[in-house]
Amino acid sequence: MEFKGYAIKDTKHYTDFEVIPFTPKAFTEDDVEIAISHCGVCGSDVHTVTGGWGEPELPLIVGHEIVGKVTRVGKNVKDLKVGDRAGVGAQCLSCMDCRACKTDNENYCPGMIHTYGSKFADGIKTMGGYSTGIIAHTQFVFPIPDEVESRHACSMLCAGLTVFSPLIRNGCGPGKKVGVVGLGGLGHYALLFAKALGAEVYVFSHSANKESDAKKMGADHYINTSAEGFAKSYANTLDLIVSTSNAKNMPIQEYLSMLWVHGSFITVGLPEDPLPSMMAFDLLNNGCKLGGSHIGSKVEALQMLDLAAKKNIKPWITELPMKEAGKAIEGVKNGSVRYRYVLTQDLA
Amino acid sequence: MEFKGYAIKDTKHYTDFEVIPFTPKAFTEDDVEIAISHCGVCGSDVHTVTGGWGEPELPLIVGHEIVGKVTRVGKNVKDLKVGDRAGVGAQCLSCMDCRACKTDNENYCPGMIHTYGSKFADGIKTMGGYSTGIIAHTQFVFPIPDEVESRHACSMLCAGLTVFSPLIRNGCGPGKKVGVVGLGGLGHYALLFAKALGAEVYVFSHSANKESDAKKMGADHYINTSAEGFAKSYANTLDLIVSTSNAKNMPIQEYLSMLWVHGSFITVGLPEDPLPSMMAFDLLNNGCKLGGSHIGSKVEALQMLDLAAKKNIKPWITELPMKEAGKAIEGVKNGSVRYRYVLTQDLA
Repeated sequence: MEFKGYAIKDTKHYTDFEVIPFTPKAFTEDDVEIAISHCGVCGSDVHTVTGGWGEPELPLIVGHEIVGKVTRVGKNVKDLKVGDRAGVGAQCLSCMDCRACKTDNENYCPGMIHTYGSKFADGIKTMGGYSTGIIAHTQFVFPIPDEVESRHACSMLCAGLTVFSPLIRNGCGPGKKVGVVGLGGLGHYALLFAKALGAEVYVFSHSANKESDAKKMGADHYINTSAEGFAKSYANTLDLIVSTSNAKNMPIQEYLSMLWVHGSFITVGLPEDPLPSMMAFDLLNNGCKLGGSHIGSKVEALQMLDLAAKKNIKPWITELPMKEAGKAIEGVKNGSVRYRYVLTQDLA
Repeated sequence: MEFKGYAIKDTKHYTDFEVIPFTPKAFTEDDVEIAISHCGVCGSDVHTVTGGWGEPELPLIVGHEIVGKVTRVGKNVKDLKVGDRAGVGAQCLSCMDCRACKTDNENYCPGMIHTYGSKFADGIKTMGGYSTGIIAHTQFVFPIPDEVESRHACSMLCAGLTVFSPLIRNGCGPGKKVGVVGLGGLGHYALLFAKALGAEVYVFSHSANKESDAKKMGADHYINTSAEGFAKSYANTLDLIVSTSNAKNMPIQEYLSMLWVHGSFITVGLPEDPLPSMMAFDLLNNGCKLGGSHIGSKVEALQMLDLAAKKNIKPWITELPMKEAGKAIEGVKNGSVRYRYVLTQDLA
């Protein structure tokens, strides 16, 4: 395969993608090679190409919501064969040997390697999915169920998994009241999955604009957080809140106050600014917890894809040819995306 | 009984206690009246008499680590009779009717009433245990086991319970690695109870001064947090940290970095200043949680006292006559206390 993709060469010109060739990792018997057909556009891509999370090493091809056809498999690969559809999310390797790796927490391996912008031990830089192909270790390659179209599956592998994991790990299910802060790419998945898992879902958004969409996606409640005192009638109610907000001044005290005893507020949003100032007293009245979460494990990815297949879960997406990556980046950055851009292959 | 106690009349003169009479709540058939023999001196007393948590309504008698002899019981009281030893902690009433009250979470009842400085529905102000007596609802009165001396039991009812509850609720037990931040009144209880529950205990203190005491109390590890990079060798190790620190600039990033995947850092310290600034990224690498906890339930208080009786747990205390409350307040404020002051009755 000829490996090439749309790269950013300057974070000041973060919508100017230019096709470059690149060298993938050396293929091993644990690896899967994929000819990419679709790649979702993640908020991480925006934070990276704009330099918001720090200056990346350039040129860089981003994209970590990858789906395509398997073109080559190593001998040790059990769950895929050439011609199958498969995907890769935000992580492409871990050490396979630490406590995290041995307990299905490979997404918390301290030696993890990200799908783009990291380096393998041999110095080869990882390049993302706005490209023709990728080679990744089988642990980080997920078979796509027949029932799920590639254009729907791709953004599940980062956006979907990033919210599915904290939902599952914090007991989302029937009888639980689950809040979702922010109805963007991640937020709309949190809503779709929390409903599919049987929870009662409360969507919090900073305007009334998305109420109709939220209800169509299945939200039981829609709360406009720009209304004064929006949290009061929900005090000590929610078992879990998954926050996808990147807002600098999110009303964190109000969110925490809505949690039931020992409920968790899990931020999967990664604002470029510090979290709002908090007092220990803000955690006192309900013994609540503020936590983080990092993508998900392969076990969870397979469970999520299975749920999507069985419950016919479809993200709300806009498809664009890969050459229009800059337009997609701009749409994610300015918040006009409804609710995920998916880039389709135009190089191979 | 004649109700009188040592009161503060001016937060500027927070060590000048003066004896005043007061009116307790009206006795009901759910209540227990106690002639106080001992009262521990809690950090909350200091934050209150100095006005650090806001100006209290004065004059005020503080103290919420109360033990004494039962002098009267209402008809509905099942577990105590006149002459028994019993104690009251930081809470003296809740609504008895909400979801929290009905699930042994009465310590999170939104209608809870504190043992001092609160008001009952009829306007009677609650007065604490630097006094001759108290009347409290039986739900908040704990029988003291024969094996536990009153001078040892009293400070368990706030300091002890405040750390016992988060230990129990976050899985402290055999095979778990538990950190304790700060070796003061609460911290030394966290160490004693975590050891008694079977955990491996790591004590974090900002100097080497208390290492010998910590080891005598059973600490497996003692870490001086003033050493540069103290957290590095413990990265991703601890299942739980209970922090009793009130320090303005505690190294929260370092503490969080030591937690195993989804481990919790529970602050029972309530600094008068905001928590140190944090990024969402600080919660990302291990999906850790930062949480709070508020005293404990009656179920937990009884479990704690039973553990203390069975494992012969004794706090390290200094006894003073109640008239020396000011000296005790000063000792807690300046950190010279080792590790709890207990005031003994000198008014009745």
